[in-house]
Amino acid sequence: MTYKYIIKVEYDGSTFNGYGTQPHQNTIQDNLEKVLTMINSNQKVKTFATSRTDAKVHAYMQIVQFSLNKEFEIHNLKNKLNKMLKEQINVLEIIKDYQDLINVRYDVINKTYIYKVMQSKSPFYLNYALYFPELLAVDQMLEATKYLIGTHNFTSFCNKNTDVINKIRTINYIKIYQKIENNLTILYFEVNGNGFLYNMVRLIVGTLLMVGSNKYPSKKVQELLLQKKRTKECVLAPAHGLYLKEINYKQNFFKR
Amino acid sequence: MTYKYIIKVEYDGSTFNGYGTQPHQNTIQDNLEKVLTMINSNQKVKTFATSRTDAKVHAYMQIVQFSLNKEFEIHNLKNKLNKMLKEQINVLEIIKDYQDLINVRYDVINKTYIYKVMQSKSPFYLNYALYFPELLAVDQMLEATKYLIGTHNFTSFCNKNTDVINKIRTINYIKIYQKIENNLTILYFEVNGNGFLYNMVRLIVGTLLMVGSNKYPSKKVQELLLQKKRTKECVLAPAHGLYLKEINYKQNFFKR
Repeated sequence: MTYKYIIKVEYDGSTFNGYGTQPHQNTIQDNLEKVLTMINSNQKVKTFATSRTDAKVHAYMQIVQFSLNKEFEIHNLKNKLNKMLKEQINVLEIIKDYQDLINVRYDVINKTYIYKVMQSKSPFYLNYALYFPELLAVDQMLEATKYLIGTHNFTSFCNKNTDVINKIRTINYIKIYQKIENNLTILYFEVNGNGFLYNMVRLIVGTLLMVGSNKYPSKKVQELLLQKKRTKECVLAPAHGLYLKEINYKQNFFKR
Repeated sequence: MTYKYIIKVEYDGSTFNGYGTQPHQNTIQDNLEKVLTMINSNQKVKTFATSRTDAKVHAYMQIVQFSLNKEFEIHNLKNKLNKMLKEQINVLEIIKDYQDLINVRYDVINKTYIYKVMQSKSPFYLNYALYFPELLAVDQMLEATKYLIGTHNFTSFCNKNTDVINKIRTINYIKIYQKIENNLTILYFEVNGNGFLYNMVRLIVGTLLMVGSNKYPSKKVQELLLQKKRTKECVLAPAHGLYLKEINYKQNFFKR
């Protein structure tokens, strides 16, 4: 008998080589599996996550499923994991999925990423927001987002190094807004879609910043999209400004 | 001819061995003096700061004075310094003090420190707030602060390793309040006084936390104060929750 668990975790990605397992690397998945294997009487535990995040990318919400050969009281399991995991990873919630109701990858309706930009530099945000001091024309960036919203072939906004063949994705919205965090004005890019290609959000934000800083006209984004080819003209924003913010499921298990 | 400058800097202390210069150590003062010496045609520049902060302690405002053998336009000087200094140090303001109006140490009226405590753990705040999950009785801590406010001999709240002989200081206020930073509830201890002994704020906060978590009655703080002796009963809170927040001068130069 095995017991299936689903956990909601947050992590500061600054010190990790990304989410997905890699030989001899410090990844979030490797740390999770190491700890889970220890509490599973040293029988190897495999985990499945909703998304992979790159080195230095953060998550306010990542969903991971796995099976253990023992039944745990979930409050105890949460405490145990938070004691044993690296401090940069925090388990927020656990679901014990007796009936195998959820598939953390296939049951996703949509996901939200945010990208944080600081226009004045704070030493406290070096790992948490992109420093971009140039004046930004938000109206021009908003104009450019119109070409991206909807269902499109996003080949131009995808890292070439990918096995994914179908490059068609739907972006539901792109919001741009400011918020004050610790007395610092942060410009947020919030992107929600049914799925994302490799580097897609970072390529969107990097290219929007080219528009905002007047290096591209907003119409250029449409041109790049229609060209369906990844070229250097789509600019990759650095990883450390990106956060996986929310994942919405059919089953609504993770809604408050 | 030399030119006297006073700078207001903020820094993330996480990666430094404190403010004050130390042989072969990564300190904020050493980084400042290295860069200043470079722009001073390699003639050694000595700096004087208002306060020393320990390893891992942060500053929202630290004041540093020095002289250069050349006159700089202060906006250019600020940009130059911010390009050359480590990113964890940020120059916020510069004053060119032609008439030698300010002494950054002797003209201080009072200083404010804050200490941040998180009661639920966020992986994004590991270097920025003390994680203290125990239930805290704020009313008991407020009761205890009454014994500390005013002019007292603070020997009990001072690291033994100090050359300072006069241990009498005045605390003007201790505020305890909550604030939300990035969806995280942070408990703040804000302490304002005319001067502080070595480790004084950390010893006050650590001891107040003993009161808040019901290990000491609030009256114990008065006992410890009157004993005028540093013992283990005054508990040192970890460095990474502490911030030098504000320094007030007679001349009001740094007020907004």
